[in-house]
Parts: sequence; structure tokens; C-alpha cells
Amino acid sequence: MTTPTELYDTHRELLDRAIQAAHDRDYWSAFPESPSKSVYGEDAAPAGERAFAALLGKTFPIDVPGATGTVSTERSPFGLELGVSYPKADPHALVAAARAATPAWRAVGTPGRAGVAVEIIKRINARTFELAHAVQHTTGQAFVMAFQAGGTHAQDRALEAVAYALSAATRLPGTAGWAKPQRGADPLRLAKTSTVVGRGVSLMIGCTTFPTWNSYPGLFASLVTGNPVIVKPHPGAVLPLAITVQICREVLAEAGQNPDLVTLAVEEPGEGIAASLATHPDVRIVDFTGSSEFGNWLEANARQAVVYTEKSGLNTVIVDSTDDYKGLLRNLAFSLSLYSGQMCTTPQNLLVPRDGIETDAGHRSAEEFGADLAAAIDKLLGDPKRAAGTLGAIVNDGVLGRLTEASGSASVIHPSGTVADEQFPQATIRTPVVVRLDAADDKVYTREWFGPVSFLITTESTPRSLEVFVETVRAHGALSASVYSTSPDVLSAAREAALDAGVHLSENLTGGVFVNQTAAFSDLHGTGANPAATASLTDDYFVTGRFFTLQSRHHVSEQPRPEEPTNV
Amino acid sequence: MTTPTELYDTHRELLDRAIQAAHDRDYWSAFPESPSKSVYGEDAAPAGERAFAALLGKTFPIDVPGATGTVSTERSPFGLELGVSYPKADPHALVAAARAATPAWRAVGTPGRAGVAVEIIKRINARTFELAHAVQHTTGQAFVMAFQAGGTHAQDRALEAVAYALSAATRLPGTAGWAKPQRGADPLRLAKTSTVVGRGVSLMIGCTTFPTWNSYPGLFASLVTGNPVIVKPHPGAVLPLAITVQICREVLAEAGQNPDLVTLAVEEPGEGIAASLATHPDVRIVDFTGSSEFGNWLEANARQAVVYTEKSGLNTVIVDSTDDYKGLLRNLAFSLSLYSGQMCTTPQNLLVPRDGIETDAGHRSAEEFGADLAAAIDKLLGDPKRAAGTLGAIVNDGVLGRLTEASGSASVIHPSGTVADEQFPQATIRTPVVVRLDAADDKVYTREWFGPVSFLITTESTPRSLEVFVETVRAHGALSASVYSTSPDVLSAAREAALDAGVHLSENLTGGVFVNQTAAFSDLHGTGANPAATASLTDDYFVTGRFFTLQSRHHVSEQPRPEEPTNV
Repeated sequence: MTTPTELYDTHRELLDRAIQAAHDRDYWSAFPESPSKSVYGEDAAPAGERAFAALLGKTFPIDVPGATGTVSTERSPFGLELGVSYPKADPHALVAAARAATPAWRAVGTPGRAGVAVEIIKRINARTFELAHAVQHTTGQAFVMAFQAGGTHAQDRALEAVAYALSAATRLPGTAGWAKPQRGADPLRLAKTSTVVGRGVSLMIGCTTFPTWNSYPGLFASLVTGNPVIVKPHPGAVLPLAITVQICREVLAEAGQNPDLVTLAVEEPGEGIAASLATHPDVRIVDFTGSSEFGNWLEANARQAVVYTEKSGLNTVIVDSTDDYKGLLRNLAFSLSLYSGQMCTTPQNLLVPRDGIETDAGHRSAEEFGADLAAAIDKLLGDPKRAAGTLGAIVNDGVLGRLTEASGSASVIHPSGTVADEQFPQATIRTPVVVRLDAADDKVYTREWFGPVSFLITTESTPRSLEVFVETVRAHGALSASVYSTSPDVLSAAREAALDAGVHLSENLTGGVFVNQTAAFSDLHGTGANPAATASLTDDYFVTGRFFTLQSRHHVSEQPRPEEPTNV
Repeated sequence: MTTPTELYDTHRELLDRAIQAAHDRDYWSAFPESPSKSVYGEDAAPAGERAFAALLGKTFPIDVPGATGTVSTERSPFGLELGVSYPKADPHALVAAARAATPAWRAVGTPGRAGVAVEIIKRINARTFELAHAVQHTTGQAFVMAFQAGGTHAQDRALEAVAYALSAATRLPGTAGWAKPQRGADPLRLAKTSTVVGRGVSLMIGCTTFPTWNSYPGLFASLVTGNPVIVKPHPGAVLPLAITVQICREVLAEAGQNPDLVTLAVEEPGEGIAASLATHPDVRIVDFTGSSEFGNWLEANARQAVVYTEKSGLNTVIVDSTDDYKGLLRNLAFSLSLYSGQMCTTPQNLLVPRDGIETDAGHRSAEEFGADLAAAIDKLLGDPKRAAGTLGAIVNDGVLGRLTEASGSASVIHPSGTVADEQFPQATIRTPVVVRLDAADDKVYTREWFGPVSFLITTESTPRSLEVFVETVRAHGALSASVYSTSPDVLSAAREAALDAGVHLSENLTGGVFVNQTAAFSDLHGTGANPAATASLTDDYFVTGRFFTLQSRHHVSEQPRPEEPTNV
């Protein structure tokens, strides 16, 4: 057994570095994003693939308290037969097991819990290749993206959440002395103790497109602040979280803790276990990524809990002018194509002045801009092999349905096409559709069309584009926004508009950074300031609702020496 | 005009000291609690009294946007004729004015806002004598208590909230550079900016017993994080908050800001303006102190807002044993008597083993302990003049009604008596009633009897007392708890029980510290972990829900130099 305290000591240097990075917001990553042999070793890739293959067609090896029977719900967007089944959960048994495991976890203290969390994340990192296959064949992400977004970037986001939770939960010293001077008498002296107590059972509801990246921050923030976590994957993307929970339980048990601190809640589709769990009186924290419909339901109904949601929105690009037209087109084409637009940060609404834009390639009318963008998409996706690596596969029929619906529009600028994959001939791969609209067509573009669907929306002028941006995002939310302009006044107005809309802003991205990507330790993801999300990944607000600090105090005759604060 | 930045520079040393104190949790106070001439000067007391007297019988001089007519609702528990009237507010006009004032306040930035806040608090401090009279004659607090709890302690709690808000809202650097290494190419470089944006219009609903102390943390936390604040006093205690709002508006105007950032919302009793404002779509933050009934209503209905409530609870004392029986009795008698038990932290339920307790004065049966406690109360309140100074006056008929109801019980241990006041013969002054109950009488003692009513409840044993403590506080909440025991095992069990119940614990208070008192910068008030309150005064959770951090980012060719972080 390695105790939590020993694990904290082992990982303290990494935690200190992570806390520093989260404070400085400069570039830092703990987990290399390159799946190359020089980084992960000669055998890592084939070993990961073998480990993944060994899971197929079997019941996943994991203990679930009170489980009855098994469930199998996943299908690969690449057409691979998965056939993994999972023990079927009983919500009441999960909550009871979670509660039973809590007191000993509280007694560990925050640094020890952070040590356990880092050990878990490092073991997840050691299984990144296996996880990448699991992410690829549940989400439809291409392998390299699955390795990065589903693997190392998710691990960085996990570590970031641990760093924030550790900092926030140790900001008050564990012990303090208090001496109030008294006129003509000795001071009144008290010794005071602070203890961090978790809010209660935490429920993590995963999504189908980013099962790990979107789940890890809440999972680890809850764990470190003293809460047991029930992990409820989306029925379409269970395996990546099942592997995660398996690792959590293994590390917890080795650290002398009850593994039921992290359990897996798998259901038949439509069983509604997420809703039952989210409204259970002992469930006090809910993290959710997914549709606005269920997210809003959770916010309205999980009243006994703090609810952190990330939902849908209208990601917007304001195009005014540029001094790097080629860069703009290349960057935007990639943003629209990456993972077939199935990112919560993919741009949907591209706002362009009706009279066109000024560029370093001369004035371009709105029509010309649309044609140039379509050409840039075609160029990016011209080679089928590279196209498949960028697009990945379509995750489910819902996305396909929206793609079909948008493709039926009268004003398609770029039609969606089919791409064949060499390795997985049955994969469902589509290029994005771009549709031309007018600012007056708000009934169409104020709805989220999650997937490879975007709209080139002509407006009266850039000032009007900014108004549309603020109005639609305030009303419907957004997880990303960007602006292209050579005018300092327009950029300044766009910044103010983004503050009014409550969304982060990227300006003039023409190189290798894309609006749909955020980097752990530097970029916040979501703001809380618009309807698309209630909090940022990760800031203090995301972690401080997960615990309470309880004090005790008693008289002492001498001033006690305060302990060294554990937060460094 | 003194700009917010200049005010920040002026008060920076004090802010740094406050942040340090909030971090260390040792004793520190910025505002001397002694109303003596040597501290506040020869003329301060008479000048304050004159200023207070000049307000009586007139319309309070304050601008209220959209006001129509005036309202007068206060009566002094000491019988003084007040006759102060206030402009009657129109909720929609207040919200509109608050919104109009917001953009310029956002542009000030967090340090400047903190500078303005400290200037306000210092001017409040300069009017402490005047405020103490206003607090005394609305709440019924005796003058010295009104000076301290309503004056300097409230000012310390205000400064503490400013320190927390400033720290939390400047924890992310205003600017950061990001450079991601690229294989065989220059790093990708971005410059990033963070801007703090307030959540929206903030509503502060004050209470009748601690109009300033309970209101200041939310008021100042919201202001510093960029939100306008509508101050809605309890109809029974308007004047202390009217003076506060007047000072806020004066300082804001002098700093070049729109004074409508802080407005006063006064209504006729029963008009329901608090409910209309709390559910207004633009009101995004609600702070409330008062009844569980309205607090729970706010939590259920003000769904567009974050809601911070402090409600009622069952403050509990577990009496097991003591090595300072006299100290215990003296301390407990004072806690029950201070401000006639009209503190949200006054003990109500005293749990004692049926077979009595061991003390340094020998074994005392439960009956003997009850008699000794009654005698200690009589001794404390034997001299009418000193008694009036401790008890203050009964704030309203609701308290009087509960006192009468409890006095009708069959098992009164200490009957409530009437005390005459020399200065204010019409003051309503009562000593506390203590009633003997059994653990089985939970229908009586699981209800809050706010006021000078407490119950000596006999239980089977101390372990059973701890169970009753945990069960009742988990179900009904508590803002304070204390234990008396000479047994390390019992103290340890009581600490665990307090963690389970979610309440702060005081142990063996026998000297000059009382369970009903908490010190700013060292003691948290409320926990969030039981139904009596949703948050602590003051910790990060109390401030982080009041703002969002919004980022913008753009490419740069050279690594930008990060600014000095403003948080020191």
C-alpha cells in the first residue's frame, strides 16, 4: 500500500508546477501530445492496440456495487464491431456505496487526495494508446485527435482541475492562532482548526463526443475536494470512462481507500438513470456536458445539488477585414472541418457584411468570400486520407440528420461530400456543409446545428454583425467566438461585444491556433456568463462549490504556532 | 475627483494587510471597536448623536431613481419616535438605473473598484457613532453593541469581503504570454488578456437585527467584482442601510462613477418588492438574511440568479463535563442573554445527559445544572442598568410572541422577566426564558425560536446528544455549535459530529469568547454545509459566483512580457 500522503510527496513537484502554470497562464503541458515512439516508447502503440482489442466482445472487468446483469450500447462510427458489455448499475446501490466510502476519504485531507488524483492521472496517461482507440471508436474522432483531445489534453485538463482544487481547498490554513488584545489583561487566545468537507456525492454525466476531456475536470475537482463520484457515461461512449473508472478504483484500493469512491453507472438507453441520480437527495454535485434540453432540465430539477453544465450554443465568427486572407481561409476551413464540426467550440455562424470585406487580396464580395471559403475547404479535404484524419467520423444519426436537413437548403455554398476511409471502409465520413443566410433568417441560425453545418450570414455592416453576435449569444449562448479585422476600432468594439455577450474571443487567427481549441493551464473553456455553460474549465468558481471549510476553536493559554500552510 | 485607481493606491497598504490577515486567519481588525474618546476623538460621540438626531422626523436625503412618494416604516424598540421617511422605490427603475451604470464600472477594473470600496468603508467608519444610534433604534441592540456589531465589526466584515473579492478576481493575470513549441518551427505565440465581468445586477436583502453586519459582505463583494447593487432593507431597519447607501453614492460620484451603482429600495410593508426584484431577469445575484421561509422561497424562485442565503437554524450546545463549571455557566448565561438571544448564532438547544454531568464542582444532575444556569442568568442580569446593556430591546412582536408562547410551558427553568431602562422608559426589555425538555420533545425543539428562548434538553447520554445534534442540524441547520467536555474522546467525537452536521464548533468556551461571536478575518460565519446558510462569510465560494473571467487572445510574433499581477 502506498498511502495518500506518500502519493502526495511523490507527485508534489508536479503539483507545484501545475499550480504555478495555472497561475501564470503561460504554455505548459504535463503530458506530451505526440503519439510518437520517441516519447512513449517503441512498444506503447502496439501494446495499447492489443489492450484495446482484448476488451472487445467481452464484459468489461469492473466491480459495480449492486450491479444486476450487463448492458452493451456502443457502436463505432468507424464500423468496427465493439461488443463490450458493462455491469448494469442500480442507482441506489451506487449512492449508498459512495456515501459509505466518504468518511475515510474526508480524513485523508486535501493534499493526500490530490496525491491519489495525480497517481490516477499518471496511470491514465500510461494507457493513452488504449484509451485513444476507445475514444476513436466511440466518438468518431480520428486516432491522433483521440490520442490528444481524448488522451493527453484531457489528462492536462484533469491535472489542472487537481491543481485548482488543491489550491482552493488549502487556501485557508489548517490551523491558526488568534490572540485578541485586552485592555489591562492577557490577550484572549484561541487555537483554530479548519477541515475541508466535501459537499456530498458527485455525479458526472459524460457526453458522446468528448467523454474524457469534458468529464475529467469535474471528476477530479470533486474527488480532490473530498467527494465520491458516480461516473455516468453517455450510452454511446462508455468505454473511455469505464477504463478511467477502472484505473481510479485500482489506485484508490492500493492507497487503502474504498474503491467505491468512484463507480460506473451504466444503463440501457432511455432508462433515465442520469435523471434519477441527479435528483437523489444525497447527490449534491452534478457535472454535465450535452444538450441544452437535458442541461436546462438538470439546472431546474437537481435542486439539492450544485449543477455545472456545458450545453449548446451559437459559436460565432465576425469577419470584417484581414491582412492575411489566405491564412484566414485556411484557418477557418480547418476549424469547420476538424472532427466534422462535432466540437462544442466549432464555429456555426459566420457574420459577414453584405457589401463584402477588405483583404490583402483586394475587396471580396460576400459571394466571393463564400466561394473562397468553399474552395479552402475543398483544398484542405482534397486528399481522402488526410481528409479522414481531419474529419474523423460522424458520431451518430442525429448529426447526420442535421447535415441532411441543412444540405437541403436553397443556398448551399459548400455541399457536404462523402469521404472513404482505407482502414475502416464502413466509417461514416462527411465534409462540412456551408449555407448562405441573411441576418433576417434568425429562425435558422439561432438554433444550434451541432455537427458539420455552418452558416455564412450576411449583415448590413460589421457594427450590425457585432449586434447580432451580442444578441444571439446572450440569448442562446456560445462556447467560442472570433473576429477578423485590421481595424483597431473594430477589434476594440469586438472585445467589448464579447464582454457583453459573455464569451471568450479569438482575434485574427490565421496560423496554427484554432478557435475551437483551448489549452489547459492557459485558456479557460466556457465562461458561465452566457447560457452555453454555467462555469469555466477551470477556475476557482468551478471548484469552490464542491467543498465547505469547517472550523473548530478552543481556548489556549499560549499562542499556538501555526502549521506551515500546505498550499505552496 | 479622485479616480478609482488613485483610491486603490491610497488604500493599497490597508488592502494588502487585509488580504494577509484573511490568509493567516490570526487576530486582526482595521476598525477599533472601542467607542472611546481616545480612539475616535473628543467630539465624535456628540457629533454622531447630533447627526442622528438631525435625521429624525424628516425625509432621508437620498436620490432614488424613479422614486414616487415617501414611506416611513420604522419604530424604535427603545420607544424613541423616529419618523424618518424614505423615497419609495420603483423596482424597474432601479434595475434600469443599475444596468445603465454597469459598463463604466466594468471598465474600472478590480483594483480600482476595491479602492472605491475601501474609501466607502472608511467613510462609514467615520460615521460609526451616527450609525450606532441608527442601528440601536431599529434593531434594539444596546448602544455599545450597535457601535461594535453594527459599526466596526460590520466594517471589518466589509473589508474582509473586499479583500476576498480583490484576491479572487485578480488571481488570473490580466495579461499572459503563451508560446507552444513546434517541432522544426518557431513556437506558436499568443498574447492573452483576461477581463473580469460582473454577473449582473445584485440585490441585497437586509434583515432587521443586523442590517449592516449581515449586508456588508454581499454588498461589497458584489461591488468589487463589477456588479451594481440594489439595497433592499428590512422595513424595520432602513436607516442604517440608507446611511450606507448615501455614503456609497457620495463616494461613487466623487470617483467619477454613476451613483446608481448602489441604490436604496424602500417599500411599504407587504408590498413584496424583494420578491419582484429577486425574480427580475436582470437581477443575477441575490444576498439574503432572514427567515427560512423567504430564504427557501428565494432559492426556489430566483432561478436566474445565484442566491446566497442565511436563514434560521438550531444552534446547539452539547454539555458533557467541564473543569470550569463557573466559567461554563457564566459564558453560557451571557450567550443566551446577549441582545436578548436575537442573534442568528444564539444557542437554542442545550443537550445534557439525563444523569447529569461531571464538573470541578462535583457531579451535577440535569436539574441542578438547570438551576445553576438560571442562577447564572439572574446573576448576570441582576443589575438593571447592566442588564439593559447586555439585553438590548426586543426587536418586534414576533419575538415577543415566541417568548410568551415558550413562557407558557409547563417546565420553565428560568422565567423571562421585564427590565426597566433609565434612558428609554418605553423600551421593551426582557430576560431570557429557559425551558426544560426531553429528547423526545423534538416537535418543540426542532423549530427555531428566534429570540430569548432556549431549551435544556435531557438525553440518554452524551453519545445520544451527539446523535441528536447531527440529526437535527443536518435537517434544520445551525449557525453555531459548542461542546463542553473534559474527555478527549468526547471532544474528538464532537468534532467529527460537527463535520457530519456541517457546522463550526466551539469547544469549552469558559472565558471572554462566546459561541455567538465570530471575528472577521479569522472565523467563518455559516458554512454552506447545513440548511441554515448557503455560504460562509467570507470565503472564496462567497465571492467567485459574482463574476466571470473573459479572455481574448491573438497571435504575436514575439513573446509578450506579462504585466505584474495586480494581486499581491
